[in-house]
Amino acid sequence: MENVYIGVDLGGTNLRVGIVDQKGQMLNVKQIPTDAETGYESIIKRMIALIKDVKKAYSAVSIGIGSPGPLNPFDGIVVAPPNLPGWKDVPITSIVQEELNIPTFLVNDADAAALGEALFGAGKKRSSSFYITVSTGIGGGYVQDDRLIQGEHGYSAEIGNMIIKPGGQKHANMNAGSLEALASGTSIAREGQARMGITGGAEEVFQLAEEGNEEAIFIIDEAIDALAIGIANLAHSVDPAVFILGGGVMQAKEMILPLLKEKVNQYVYEGLRGKIEIEPVQLDDKAGIIGAAMHGRRMVEQ
Amino acid sequence: MENVYIGVDLGGTNLRVGIVDQKGQMLNVKQIPTDAETGYESIIKRMIALIKDVKKAYSAVSIGIGSPGPLNPFDGIVVAPPNLPGWKDVPITSIVQEELNIPTFLVNDADAAALGEALFGAGKKRSSSFYITVSTGIGGGYVQDDRLIQGEHGYSAEIGNMIIKPGGQKHANMNAGSLEALASGTSIAREGQARMGITGGAEEVFQLAEEGNEEAIFIIDEAIDALAIGIANLAHSVDPAVFILGGGVMQAKEMILPLLKEKVNQYVYEGLRGKIEIEPVQLDDKAGIIGAAMHGRRMVEQ
Repeated sequence: MENVYIGVDLGGTNLRVGIVDQKGQMLNVKQIPTDAETGYESIIKRMIALIKDVKKAYSAVSIGIGSPGPLNPFDGIVVAPPNLPGWKDVPITSIVQEELNIPTFLVNDADAAALGEALFGAGKKRSSSFYITVSTGIGGGYVQDDRLIQGEHGYSAEIGNMIIKPGGQKHANMNAGSLEALASGTSIAREGQARMGITGGAEEVFQLAEEGNEEAIFIIDEAIDALAIGIANLAHSVDPAVFILGGGVMQAKEMILPLLKEKVNQYVYEGLRGKIEIEPVQLDDKAGIIGAAMHGRRMVEQ
Repeated sequence: MENVYIGVDLGGTNLRVGIVDQKGQMLNVKQIPTDAETGYESIIKRMIALIKDVKKAYSAVSIGIGSPGPLNPFDGIVVAPPNLPGWKDVPITSIVQEELNIPTFLVNDADAAALGEALFGAGKKRSSSFYITVSTGIGGGYVQDDRLIQGEHGYSAEIGNMIIKPGGQKHANMNAGSLEALASGTSIAREGQARMGITGGAEEVFQLAEEGNEEAIFIIDEAIDALAIGIANLAHSVDPAVFILGGGVMQAKEMILPLLKEKVNQYVYEGLRGKIEIEPVQLDDKAGIIGAAMHGRRMVEQ
């Protein structure tokens, strides 16, 4: 029987478990509400039950758990994610592995999605890719030769905290003028409220921009400019074969991508102009499960 | 007999050729003036003669040529380096290989130095390193698991063009507010002239700063601040195990490194503070030859 791998997507809202084969096909997938307020013991208990349920007909080689950060992927510890209240240094891999007796690994959720897209989505057959998720926050994942580059301390692709405009807007515990403070859905919503008095969030700003509202167009242009600087800086750092863009804000990709590509071309060396590939995600919400499963696979089979 | 590898360091001033063994030891090295004004045909002819001279007693497996950019490392073509006048799309690897019948490879000079330092210098036994050379310009090289990451188009670690302060100073064909325009020796010299009317270049600014001149201290503080932002952004992009700093400006490392580390700590996530390693180069001008040789080795033996 072909080897299969379990991928877990632990989100603040939903908990999903899937069985993935070597070709990245999802053979079985189930989902329950995370019910984050029930705390980590309850959530992990239900996670284990869901894994048992999903894996019934299969003999799985590994378990990969994608979780929001901060976390320590090397020790398998979830540190303290803002959207998982009460979690504090939870050794999730050892708890799960002890119960199920299958090698278990932890990976940042954006890294998991990056690996899924790199292997079977928009980065398929490319030598490298940089995944960027633009949502309430901004995160990412860097994959080189089908391998996730997690970094020495697990902080690779924590690009939301890259400084784009020193002394600029500040967002949560991040740098002033960070990418997240300038280009995330939260920052677009903040500017919409500050400049236009609207309270419908980034979605309303995009809606108004589409209708030709100049203030809304300005806000989005500024956000795209910050994102373009971030991408150009990454092109001059690791020069990936493709940038893969996902996350809630990218639902407006028809408005974002043409302008983004134009601006990126202005910010890179002449020799790179017209050569920077920027693609939308292909696997949507499956990328996280598939990538987590493939990360577990890599860890046991490498 | 043990395999040995030839490394060439083609500089605007000197042309150096060395024989390097598997442990990174330089067994034989010779140097001649490049005499850049004599043009590429004369230079390559003398390069080939020097290689023949140096390799006499050895049976070399490969030749790696480190050259200033822009260049195309994949096709072995030197495009048009500012300090090698008259060179325009020179297919240097095929010319050398045809003459010597040894597999020959081209690599950016900063990439070569990065690989040399990674394998046998300040990055030895580390899983990854990011080399930064701060001189008249700013360049670099990124090494992951002992492998040079050159990027899809050969633009990896072209960090001089990273945007640090949008709309800031412009340097040559680079972005406004680029790292090179803010933190290179050229930019320090420019500020010294503009703010203090001195013409002794970066060296004079460092000298005055050491003597307590407040304007000079301010200029250097600004340059180090830009470099710190660049390093923090790279830490949030690839999180290398060590940053390795070299180049002429780093001769003032006793003044630069303590302040640089302090500023980098301000610009990274709390979880990274105190953990970012920044080390001076260890191999000095040998890194380029050793790295070029090891790049050639990797290309034939991988």
